[in-house]
Amino acid sequence: MANADDACCPHYHEAIEFLGKRWTGAIVRVLMHRSPQRFSEIANAVPELSDRLLSERMKELEARGVVVRTVVPDPPGGGPTRVEYALTGMGRELEPALEALEAWAQRWLPDCDGASR
Amino acid sequence: MANADDACCPHYHEAIEFLGKRWTGAIVRVLMHRSPQRFSEIANAVPELSDRLLSERMKELEARGVVVRTVVPDPPGGGPTRVEYALTGMGRELEPALEALEAWAQRWLPDCDGASR
Repeated sequence: MANADDACCPHYHEAIEFLGKRWTGAIVRVLMHRSPQRFSEIANAVPELSDRLLSERMKELEARGVVVRTVVPDPPGGGPTRVEYALTGMGRELEPALEALEAWAQRWLPDCDGASR
Repeated sequence: MANADDACCPHYHEAIEFLGKRWTGAIVRVLMHRSPQRFSEIANAVPELSDRLLSERMKELEARGVVVRTVVPDPPGGGPTRVEYALTGMGRELEPALEALEAWAQRWLPDCDGASR
């Protein structure tokens, strides 16, 4: 890494533990593939995750500035209000790190192309 | 990311939560800067971490294949046996991902160059 004398960067530490929190990395990856998405679309993409925990994680991602939540106004002919979530610029800039980590996982962790996908 | 249809790669998910576990990312970063290191050197580089938890994390990293533990034989003139930890090839290949994450953290999280470093 760039600076061998810099033993421990508190913000790198903060970043890796924020993204490594249960399901957070998976949610960011889903939004990296397509933004914006509705809550139910994200929930469908990460089916093991409960709605309660997904809601908690979305609030954390929004508070951190990685995700923006938008309420789409009612369409003129009526119909339900939509809430959509998208990555912010800050969130999109995680792509190189998450892509590199995914390449590492595909290379080093077994069966990433296996039946569970 | 490479494949927009691939909503959730279980091994990416496994990797980010493994590295995001409390202190694991910080320990890997310390060994990325210099390997091998003795237990006490790693402990000094991450001073907030207890020896008990560091020991647990080193066992997990070793079990996963990211770190190798080597017992250095007694020197001919006597003296204590040394135990050293180094990243494996698999561990060193985390560098691009962790560097990209660190760059992101430096850009987006406040005060990374502040007094706590």
